[in-house]
Amino acid sequence: MTDLHADAPGPIAAGSLAAELRKACASNWDAYVNHPFVRQLAAGTLETASYKHFLIQDYLFLRHFARAWMLVAYKAPDLNEMRAASQTVDALINQELQLHVETCAGWGISEAEMAATPEARANLAYTRFVLETGHSGDLLDLLVALAPCVVGYGEIGARLAADPATVWDGNPFREWLDLYSDEEFQEVGRGACAQIDRVARARIGSDVTGSPRWSELCRIFGQATRLEIGFWDMGLNRED
Amino acid sequence: MTDLHADAPGPIAAGSLAAELRKACASNWDAYVNHPFVRQLAAGTLETASYKHFLIQDYLFLRHFARAWMLVAYKAPDLNEMRAASQTVDALINQELQLHVETCAGWGISEAEMAATPEARANLAYTRFVLETGHSGDLLDLLVALAPCVVGYGEIGARLAADPATVWDGNPFREWLDLYSDEEFQEVGRGACAQIDRVARARIGSDVTGSPRWSELCRIFGQATRLEIGFWDMGLNRED
Amino acid sequence: MTDLHADAPGPIAAGSLAAELRKACASNWDAYVNHPFVRQLAAGTLETASYKHFLIQDYLFLRHFARAWMLVAYKAPDLNEMRAASQTVDALINQELQLHVETCAGWGISEAEMAATPEARANLAYTRFVLETGHSGDLLDLLVALAPCVVGYGEIGARLAADPATVWDGNPFREWLDLYSDEEFQEVGRGACAQIDRVARARIGSDVTGSPRWSELCRIFGQATRLEIGFWDMGLNRED
Amino acid sequence: MTDLHADAPGPIAAGSLAAELRKACASNWDAYVNHPFVRQLAAGTLETASYKHFLIQDYLFLRHFARAWMLVAYKAPDLNEMRAASQTVDALINQELQLHVETCAGWGISEAEMAATPEARANLAYTRFVLETGHSGDLLDLLVALAPCVVGYGEIGARLAADPATVWDGNPFREWLDLYSDEEFQEVGRGACAQIDRVARARIGSDVTGSPRWSELCRIFGQATRLEIGFWDMGLNRED
Repeated sequence: MTDLHADAPGPIAAGSLAAELRKACASNWDAYVNHPFVRQLAAGTLETASYKHFLIQDYLFLRHFARAWMLVAYKAPDLNEMRAASQTVDALINQELQLHVETCAGWGISEAEMAATPEARANLAYTRFVLETGHSGDLLDLLVALAPCVVGYGEIGARLAADPATVWDGNPFREWLDLYSDEEFQEVGRGACAQIDRVARARIGSDVTGSPRWSELCRIFGQATRLEIGFWDMGLNRED
Repeated sequence: MTDLHADAPGPIAAGSLAAELRKACASNWDAYVNHPFVRQLAAGTLETASYKHFLIQDYLFLRHFARAWMLVAYKAPDLNEMRAASQTVDALINQELQLHVETCAGWGISEAEMAATPEARANLAYTRFVLETGHSGDLLDLLVALAPCVVGYGEIGARLAADPATVWDGNPFREWLDLYSDEEFQEVGRGACAQIDRVARARIGSDVTGSPRWSELCRIFGQATRLEIGFWDMGLNRED
Repeated sequence: MTDLHADAPGPIAAGSLAAELRKACASNWDAYVNHPFVRQLAAGTLETASYKHFLIQDYLFLRHFARAWMLVAYKAPDLNEMRAASQTVDALINQELQLHVETCAGWGISEAEMAATPEARANLAYTRFVLETGHSGDLLDLLVALAPCVVGYGEIGARLAADPATVWDGNPFREWLDLYSDEEFQEVGRGACAQIDRVARARIGSDVTGSPRWSELCRIFGQATRLEIGFWDMGLNRED
Repeated sequence: MTDLHADAPGPIAAGSLAAELRKACASNWDAYVNHPFVRQLAAGTLETASYKHFLIQDYLFLRHFARAWMLVAYKAPDLNEMRAASQTVDALINQELQLHVETCAGWGISEAEMAATPEARANLAYTRFVLETGHSGDLLDLLVALAPCVVGYGEIGARLAADPATVWDGNPFREWLDLYSDEEFQEVGRGACAQIDRVARARIGSDVTGSPRWSELCRIFGQATRLEIGFWDMGLNRED
């Protein structure tokens, strides 16, 4: 497990705070990025019903995730950070969500049906934890709560792209693999990492991991990582 | 089930909005107030490990619940509503939480141990849903999200007090039964119901159940009720 | 004064709630849209120092105004309302703010200089009142607090366009007049009015002006209108 | 001016962060604590109409100030900090506000009259700035925004108590002098200072004044201090 982290592919640069946060919850991170749901996606063996269940919940998730990025923009200290957050919101609402709608249409699920589906508890727990962390804390707390999703999906995409076991031809989940392994998504993840480093430096200083706040940041990142595992579980087992 | 609701004991007065909200999610409400966890508490047959697991999580829950009442006070339109919310906070922090600390001490669990326990996912989902509902909406949305807990525990207490099957003598969970069946707690529940009626009239008007907002209020109340069921499940099955 | 309101030009449609809100604070509204600052802009006689002072403060204002629209998006009940708010944010950050930067550059003021200028008290009072109204209340309260700016500037632009006394040729403030009288800005104002009608119907019902909440909505709209007057005063008198 | 700060009476302990924040805005702090309104209060020469105007606005101010302390409690990281904030809220709502009501009654002003008075712009600017700072930032930002009021009134009370020029016998504002020079109020101020030191250490580390965040904290404290000056101006000149 540990050597995978030493030079893991994906958006998390060695030496970044995201790399330190990931290290601090290594076993949970491993369970997240190598989850059976992910491996079955990559192998093309995931049950269709699980994928549909996941996709619909992920559509609902993305709406709250977009709201969280609105809160990032609200809490941004200047116009540059606000513009960065606003572009992420735009990408989420007008691109990623749109792709979900199209993919679901291909699986016979209408947007109205998705929007009317009740949120699964794992979904509710994750989204509301992130949003409320933003209200309780500051911009840094919120960015750290958002990180496991943004950088984790990027790492998963990059891992699968680098993994010879990944099935591309005829994989029914090919669109998903393409989306998250794409260079454009990797760039979003690298941007999120850089933003955490920048904001942490402004809010704490140069010695972030030595600051008394570090354990709380690790707690937030670890909690969000566990909630990602719960989200995969929910998809795999089609939990309400 | 239905005739139980016609003249259910507890703080919910016939004709109140809380009575209408409860009716709108009747089967979930029934599953909540008559949950096996509750029946085993009343019979004195609940496994001790489940009770301890529940008590510790409930201690963590109450802290966030107190935060939610702080938000009620923040959103209160005048000093009277602010004072009412502030008194509830005081009761939660200085009485109910204190009682949990003492009860847990009796079961050999220190406050430090409770405070250091990670929140179970069912706990996280419930508390953050309520808090975030307060940030998304207005005072009425927040009060409706808080209602299933405040008035539901009151109804459970009153039902158990009225139920000849409830075991009082030698019941190891007697303190819990006493707390929630006590007239003082019933009064807290009646106050919460009256506050919902008052705030709904001010925010919507006289025809609340006929307003387009009613379905959304029922959705919030129903969601919180399902999260209460999840909380009992978590206690019973000692879920993380 | 009153007959001006009967068929005032601009984005506020007769019969809309915005028209009712404006009527409820008619004399303040009149003082706002016919303020000496506005008349001197239209005549081309405003002192350059006052215009520069105003422009810099308006640049600072727009950043907080964009934050307020982020909060609108956060509180939006569905993806359509979220997209609408997100487009407004985009227009504010990438177009209106950008125009301010260019206009100021033409007057010899750099963006860095603007960003480093302390907020005038009238600016602080207005922006923070709007933002905090959003946190205290719901989406409707926030939209009503935002309305005097969005629809008022549209009405001012339309009035000046319809007023034969407006000087266009050689007016040093021509860019300002063009921006707010432009059909594109009128459309933004009409969209904001339609959104208020839509959200009010969803949150209160069909009889908004007859609801007990109406007086509070008028209070919010009236307060924001007075803060607009204060903003013009601040510009005219170059107040800190 | 500077030597006054070296050993200023009041709740700010030498070496505390509050002492550093005060030093960073020394001339504004001086203008605040030695404002003509304060000196005329101490001499008993303030115009009655100014005092009444101030008292009514201060009554309205205290409600929002209590809301800000609710937000402190909301953002508190643990039960101890939550209890501390909750006690401050209790003191504000049930003691300080009550004293204002009684004092005003003695001046012939009813609580209903006070509650119905529109907020002056200086009041609006100050209260909403503090509250919104809490939503934008974290607990530390909020505590620093609250500090000039809590510790400043304590310092003013202590200065006047130590100043031989202060008129006590027959001073019509004696109740005001007593309230803020009282040991109980000094203790509230010392508590607020200690809380800032504690939270800053937890959120930043041991070198708070050397951290990149320090300039932003000084900006918040300085802004709130200027808004205090504006509040005295508003009282003295009976501004709306």
